[in-house]
Amino acid sequence: MTTAGSPFLRACRREPTAVTPIWMMRQAGRFMPEYRAVRSRLSFLELCKHPEAAAEVTLQPVTRLGVDAAILFADILLLLEPLGLGLRFAAGDGPVIDRPIRSPADVERLPEVDAADRLAYVLETVRLVKRELSGRVPLIGFAGAPFTLASYAVEGGGSRNYLRTKGLMYAEPVAWHALMERLAILVADYLNGQIAAGADAVQVFDSWVGQLAPDDYRAFVLPHMQTLFRRLTPGVPVVHFGTGTAGILELMREAGGDVIGLDWRIPLADGWRRVGFDRAVQGNLDPAALLAPPSVIREKVREVLAQAAARPGHVFNLGHGILPETPVDHARLVVDLVHELSARDLPAFDGPAAGIAG
Amino acid sequence: MTTAGSPFLRACRREPTAVTPIWMMRQAGRFMPEYRAVRSRLSFLELCKHPEAAAEVTLQPVTRLGVDAAILFADILLLLEPLGLGLRFAAGDGPVIDRPIRSPADVERLPEVDAADRLAYVLETVRLVKRELSGRVPLIGFAGAPFTLASYAVEGGGSRNYLRTKGLMYAEPVAWHALMERLAILVADYLNGQIAAGADAVQVFDSWVGQLAPDDYRAFVLPHMQTLFRRLTPGVPVVHFGTGTAGILELMREAGGDVIGLDWRIPLADGWRRVGFDRAVQGNLDPAALLAPPSVIREKVREVLAQAAARPGHVFNLGHGILPETPVDHARLVVDLVHELSARDLPAFDGPAAGIAG
Repeated sequence: MTTAGSPFLRACRREPTAVTPIWMMRQAGRFMPEYRAVRSRLSFLELCKHPEAAAEVTLQPVTRLGVDAAILFADILLLLEPLGLGLRFAAGDGPVIDRPIRSPADVERLPEVDAADRLAYVLETVRLVKRELSGRVPLIGFAGAPFTLASYAVEGGGSRNYLRTKGLMYAEPVAWHALMERLAILVADYLNGQIAAGADAVQVFDSWVGQLAPDDYRAFVLPHMQTLFRRLTPGVPVVHFGTGTAGILELMREAGGDVIGLDWRIPLADGWRRVGFDRAVQGNLDPAALLAPPSVIREKVREVLAQAAARPGHVFNLGHGILPETPVDHARLVVDLVHELSARDLPAFDGPAAGIAG
Repeated sequence: MTTAGSPFLRACRREPTAVTPIWMMRQAGRFMPEYRAVRSRLSFLELCKHPEAAAEVTLQPVTRLGVDAAILFADILLLLEPLGLGLRFAAGDGPVIDRPIRSPADVERLPEVDAADRLAYVLETVRLVKRELSGRVPLIGFAGAPFTLASYAVEGGGSRNYLRTKGLMYAEPVAWHALMERLAILVADYLNGQIAAGADAVQVFDSWVGQLAPDDYRAFVLPHMQTLFRRLTPGVPVVHFGTGTAGILELMREAGGDVIGLDWRIPLADGWRRVGFDRAVQGNLDPAALLAPPSVIREKVREVLAQAAARPGHVFNLGHGILPETPVDHARLVVDLVHELSARDLPAFDGPAAGIAG
């Protein structure tokens, strides 16, 4: 069964849809009791590496929330493990990279790896999910973007000021570019593996790139994003996501992606205008709004939809991952509200449906 | 001796200056050995409450770095102490508020306090610094903005997602507005006390306001900022600062301030255009850039100055506080570079000098 006519994939291509499609970042996650039940048996990393269980949690929100797309359960940092950096998830402390990259020698020492081969367990999850979904909704694959991966690899985990990352960038630009080039190719190979296994679209998470000054983005990140996007299997929609990016939206557009993610700190209408109406956008409800009373949630969903002005090419999402504190009922409410408040008769627009941009 | 003709105050009024003035947020801070020497004898809170020592560290960077303004050594959270919330600085963990505001009853229970009276030690520091400076450079007073103060008061300390703060805002808007109104008046009284004691300008730190969606800023913050700015002693330049504000600059302008702070995540030229050229701007070098090699620092200082295009009304600063890891030599280098690279013959501009905006 094909998903090509699904609202999510149509919106990625900026084609009119009967309702605005919605999915939520981290929709397979801690806020759901079904997910926590699985996690009570398996650690986070074990779950990522266990295709049957990963497929199970990938599918949970499709049924429970009624979202318009599934997103693969995995982690952006899995790619660092085959690079020999040592990846752990310390309880409560987030990811830990035991052997971080700190010098040009560390970059040179990185082994050649076949990402799709070493992360075959993720591709197996993709195949299992696709079989289970049997065309109900599309499946989104994903990976971390080179900068965000590099930031974890260099800092050794999460960071507040990204001092070591920026330090390597400024003091050792040749090594920095070599690292980013390696990561761009690895990420592209990995995403192409997910696409070959059945992913209908992919999202590139450059979650922390908003910490960079625009000039630094242009010099140290943009060329590698272009390499990455250029290498992806043509014809598959690509979502390019970051947070705190209100200063670099034009540059993210230049970097690439059919759909540009917007967070809640910019009005969606302003963000879309800056991205350009020849791209689709995804966003941008504040995840914290899902903890508000239902009447407030309704108002906020309405505001986001109003900003999108029923223009084809809007994928509703949160501005970042759904928070663990979110009541499941409220997540379900958001999905229902988006569908209810965006319902329209087709054709709503008389412009020609546009193809997928570079 | 008057400081009215100083480059800093002239730039606040958008008058031409022979060089672009510079100061750095947290310039009296941990990166300086002289500061650490004082702190070895006094805790952070003791230092704030000890006018002679606070005056000493306020003056250190004026001599050591050659900056164009002193900024009072104090903390934005001092105001929470007379409100009975219990303020501690836990080593390594940042501020802790022992009795946070969580409910409408907590807001109603806040005592009436005379800020200038209860924080008389800060005003004494202002007087001591002014005497010691004897007109060499102007002194900037400061306070936390209502939202940023409220966020600490509600969360009980620093936060990542501001869930409790946004929770109160969404679920208890009447209590939220009452709290913000109280804080706006307190902050204005406190800043007016600093001005009466001799502060030549004041900065309002809304450090974390960039975490809000623009609609929330407009509904829950903007009116209270207007109250605050309206109550300040006329004729004294006011800097309105925040980080991550690239989505709300127009709203910050609407809220008020003669000088709008810009962080490094937006090109200064774009930020200034959005703020409007009838306001001055302050910023916007990435604090992490000060850890780069000197040749990189030079290039980055040049880029910020180029973005300002020698337009009167630019106060050079970092986009946020100077980092404790910063080499003192590099901080000094930035000051020297700003002066060297911005030196110009006056009058550089033939437009009329403009007054201080509301």
